[in-house]
Amino acid sequence: MVLTSLENDKVKALVRLQQKKYRDETGTYLVEGEHLVEEAYKHGSILQVIALENMPISYDCDILYVTEDILKKISSLENPPSMMALCKKEENHEIVGDKILLLDGIQDPGNLGTMIRSSLAFGVQTIILSPNCVDLYNPKVIRGTQGMMFHIPIIVMDTKDAITYMKQHHIPVYGTNVVNGVEASSLTSSEKEKYCLIMGNEGSGLSDEVFALCDRNLYIPMNEQVESLNVGVACSILLYELGR
Amino acid sequence: MVLTSLENDKVKALVRLQQKKYRDETGTYLVEGEHLVEEAYKHGSILQVIALENMPISYDCDILYVTEDILKKISSLENPPSMMALCKKEENHEIVGDKILLLDGIQDPGNLGTMIRSSLAFGVQTIILSPNCVDLYNPKVIRGTQGMMFHIPIIVMDTKDAITYMKQHHIPVYGTNVVNGVEASSLTSSEKEKYCLIMGNEGSGLSDEVFALCDRNLYIPMNEQVESLNVGVACSILLYELGR
Repeated sequence: MVLTSLENDKVKALVRLQQKKYRDETGTYLVEGEHLVEEAYKHGSILQVIALENMPISYDCDILYVTEDILKKISSLENPPSMMALCKKEENHEIVGDKILLLDGIQDPGNLGTMIRSSLAFGVQTIILSPNCVDLYNPKVIRGTQGMMFHIPIIVMDTKDAITYMKQHHIPVYGTNVVNGVEASSLTSSEKEKYCLIMGNEGSGLSDEVFALCDRNLYIPMNEQVESLNVGVACSILLYELGR
Repeated sequence: MVLTSLENDKVKALVRLQQKKYRDETGTYLVEGEHLVEEAYKHGSILQVIALENMPISYDCDILYVTEDILKKISSLENPPSMMALCKKEENHEIVGDKILLLDGIQDPGNLGTMIRSSLAFGVQTIILSPNCVDLYNPKVIRGTQGMMFHIPIIVMDTKDAITYMKQHHIPVYGTNVVNGVEASSLTSSEKEKYCLIMGNEGSGLSDEVFALCDRNLYIPMNEQVESLNVGVACSILLYELGR
């Protein structure tokens, strides 16, 4: 059976998932495109595959066939993919390992996606998002992670609670600041064994309160004309150094 | 005098600058927000400042006062800034220095902006864009550069012509590939003295033809699960290593 009416209640419910409010209410979200559907399937996150009529689907799961118009309406993309999936959110609460990235108030979905991808590349074991970060299940974030969000625990936790956890577990907390900072490349192996790197908001950086709780500040040497790097780039370079 | 009509020809002409076609035709573009206006002013690029009525402007240049509705219509942002500027494009044709970044078919405006910002941070002297890159004067690119586009020569040139220039000037050309690649951190100082780093398109990377012209390939060691980094991140890490 192929769903053809844009007014169908199922379609309306899927369209609403573009809004965080409905993702939160239902505990579900959408992934778009074959690659992300495959990653979500391997991870066991899929409730239903949504596919263009007549498309052969090899996954063993519930499938909803729809028209191109419906895909267009559900998708966040200008050129909608021929396959999407409705997924259930994962409830991670446990911090795993002692190589941690803590993101405090990151607002740009592209930046968050990029940092998740780089985290996996350079050996981060848990990513912590403060509650005021952009929603992990925002379609642009999911696209930016290139599916890597399914390969690493990502939890939402208050920044100060997270820092308290690090102090209790003797994990050094690194902020980023040139003032009183240590050049990232000069860290010794033992200083890179365990870490919690904190990256702050794109515009305002870390608050004074959070800075006061950091054990050290790291910095990346650069041309004086440049005030700062893109936060996704800065984070990735620091994780690259911490992972070496 | 304050311009109040959305139907005014000047307003219509400014709105059209959101499209590349009209930026090309007129040789002009817009920058948005006080910081970018200041950078453009210092660089001598401004033809006219466009500001919200009653806003005090300290710049010595032509000023067009407009209503909030007009700013909203001209701006590419959801929350329009209270100051914008009409700027004239710069015609750079000369390659300066021997630390070059060559971008071949970069499509995402955010990625291009990020790479321009990182180039300046890590000592690149000229950025070359292939003709099929996203337009440098796209509003999102300009925002992503944070004004750094005014501090470095950026020229448009065919990729193969650019590589020919490098060969003639004995500047080694570095592609990016794990296969037959050199770990970026293992480059010696003399291998970093002069370089032309090429980064390829987000989806397809470098063409075989371009690869064949590279003197070496560089790579960034990473977790096997991750197929690739975001191109802006990969570029920035390589420039960080080349700049050390």
